[in-house]
Amino acid sequence: MKVHNFSAGPSILPDFTVEKTAEAIKNFAGTGLSVMEVSHRSKEFVAVMDEAIALFKELLNIPEGYSVLFVGGGASTQFCMIPYNLMGKKAAYLNTGAWANKAQKEANLFGEVVEVASSKEAVYNYIPKGYEIPADADYFHITTNNTIYGTEIKEDMDINVPLVADMSSDIFSRPVDVSKYALIYGGAQKNLAPAGVTFVIVKDEILGKVDRQIPTMLDYRTHIKGESMFNTPPVVPVFAALQTLKWIKEQGGVAAMQKMNEEKAAVLYNEIDRNPMFKGTVVNEEDRSLMNICFIMADEYKELEKEFFTFATERGMSGIKGHRSVGGFRASTYNALPKASVQALVDCMKEFEALHVK
Amino acid sequence: MKVHNFSAGPSILPDFTVEKTAEAIKNFAGTGLSVMEVSHRSKEFVAVMDEAIALFKELLNIPEGYSVLFVGGGASTQFCMIPYNLMGKKAAYLNTGAWANKAQKEANLFGEVVEVASSKEAVYNYIPKGYEIPADADYFHITTNNTIYGTEIKEDMDINVPLVADMSSDIFSRPVDVSKYALIYGGAQKNLAPAGVTFVIVKDEILGKVDRQIPTMLDYRTHIKGESMFNTPPVVPVFAALQTLKWIKEQGGVAAMQKMNEEKAAVLYNEIDRNPMFKGTVVNEEDRSLMNICFIMADEYKELEKEFFTFATERGMSGIKGHRSVGGFRASTYNALPKASVQALVDCMKEFEALHVK
Repeated sequence: MKVHNFSAGPSILPDFTVEKTAEAIKNFAGTGLSVMEVSHRSKEFVAVMDEAIALFKELLNIPEGYSVLFVGGGASTQFCMIPYNLMGKKAAYLNTGAWANKAQKEANLFGEVVEVASSKEAVYNYIPKGYEIPADADYFHITTNNTIYGTEIKEDMDINVPLVADMSSDIFSRPVDVSKYALIYGGAQKNLAPAGVTFVIVKDEILGKVDRQIPTMLDYRTHIKGESMFNTPPVVPVFAALQTLKWIKEQGGVAAMQKMNEEKAAVLYNEIDRNPMFKGTVVNEEDRSLMNICFIMADEYKELEKEFFTFATERGMSGIKGHRSVGGFRASTYNALPKASVQALVDCMKEFEALHVK
Repeated sequence: MKVHNFSAGPSILPDFTVEKTAEAIKNFAGTGLSVMEVSHRSKEFVAVMDEAIALFKELLNIPEGYSVLFVGGGASTQFCMIPYNLMGKKAAYLNTGAWANKAQKEANLFGEVVEVASSKEAVYNYIPKGYEIPADADYFHITTNNTIYGTEIKEDMDINVPLVADMSSDIFSRPVDVSKYALIYGGAQKNLAPAGVTFVIVKDEILGKVDRQIPTMLDYRTHIKGESMFNTPPVVPVFAALQTLKWIKEQGGVAAMQKMNEEKAAVLYNEIDRNPMFKGTVVNEEDRSLMNICFIMADEYKELEKEFFTFATERGMSGIKGHRSVGGFRASTYNALPKASVQALVDCMKEFEALHVK
């Protein structure tokens, strides 16, 4: 039986990435050695790092004056690195989910944090709008895609202070106007690579403006100067990231990804809206994520939740259980998830309807 | 031609680790999914993490009251985590190499640092002895194996303050009496796994004694409480680490590793000492590393250095160039390096001698 991988993260990667990585684990670039065993300073691995950074910049059309970094420690480490490097006295945060909230909490250690708006009271089922950002904030932090709740900020904001975005779960899913951001970061384990590498896109000129002393590994300038090789980088995740970037380019780039993602999401959201047994959890249509599609049983079918989970699992749907704070189901439809998997899930929903709705 | 991988790190891993990882990249634990694509919360991956930690404890005979953690960010991130978590007012450091020196420098951000001794003036070609450790130091930091210079502290010290050791490049190469240490850490990319995961063995009772606020990801207690799953761990390196741990156990454990490493090192050091064309760089025999064996051309053959490098490279020796600060050659003889590779290098040295020494 084919497994349809709807896992929220770590999550599905292109077959191309899986195959090329498996090959390199055995014999990397004709060296006769595993990619796990070669020096990161070898010309073969330096070429991987250089090409990954160049392709990253090319695919997102990153302007001059920005650096792209690959570092370890996960996006969670960025939650403290951002205020360490950027916060003078005050920073503003938009609280759109558990991860946004964690990022915000961490900033409290470094100065005054202004929560401009929050949808916490409604289990984060919408993206707040119409808030005001203090003009004297050193930066404004957003989480563009909220994996747990299925909401997404799909447009690049025009705001009055430097914009910092956690794009862990929607990077490369659509074109981004990087010039509108001071810093974009994310764990790689959704649209890019296996867990273990974190990307950072940083506007060079925003650095070096705070007074505090920054530990070496937490200072973005260390990694800019070291070209992501200050210390030994996570070689396998970086190698895999390069394969995914090549695959994205081959598919037509981020615009093509967006088109595919919109098509996939439309198929599933349409079914959720049409099928009387299910309903979406996100309040406003414009906030619906293209990456994580959350739905629950309609009120009159609530007791069939476990049954549908089993029904779908038996048909090869993997990783569709919703986060415990939302319940129900979550289908993650990252770049690498084929349309056929979405169709298979929709078919399950229709079959289930035929069994239960008279 | 067989490649003999003497790389200092990332470095040779057991064939078993390479094969099992390549398999899991394609199909992990019969899930039909790549190990790169499965949730770290899946029962299959949780089992990997649990077994890796259990085997880690078993092989090093780690007593009760210690936690074993797998985290990201490299050993370099530990350089700030250690003082963040352990330094009240003062810490003592032994300066035995570039990495020891980096660890020491980082601690300056957090309090008073006492350098108890240093061999820097002699390009770190010996391990200082007979120094005094201030009794009021919160901890004493050592780097047990100095990869660049080929020196090693092979015995577990009995000292008067908590002992902290960077064992990046000699962990699992010999039995360690963990009870003599407060904390042991290291990057995995020598004797354990591909780069991207860092291990920490920490005595629980030494934590929570400092006043400063610690960022969440830099606080060891976060990772103890989260059982190394507070955030998404680097799944592929952790999977590979488990394979290496299984291999070590299969070989007879760390005592068997030590025996093999001593035998390999003896073969190579004997040849360095016997062959008139070469000489070792480490001053005292007892300081010679079993992991990184550094040697240069003898004075009268200095001009043949490049020629020997080419000669050996043509015969399959890979990664033997010495670090630029020491020059000459460095053969790293980690656990996974077969005796046959050491013999092949010794054969090269003998052949080269036959060509040049009349």
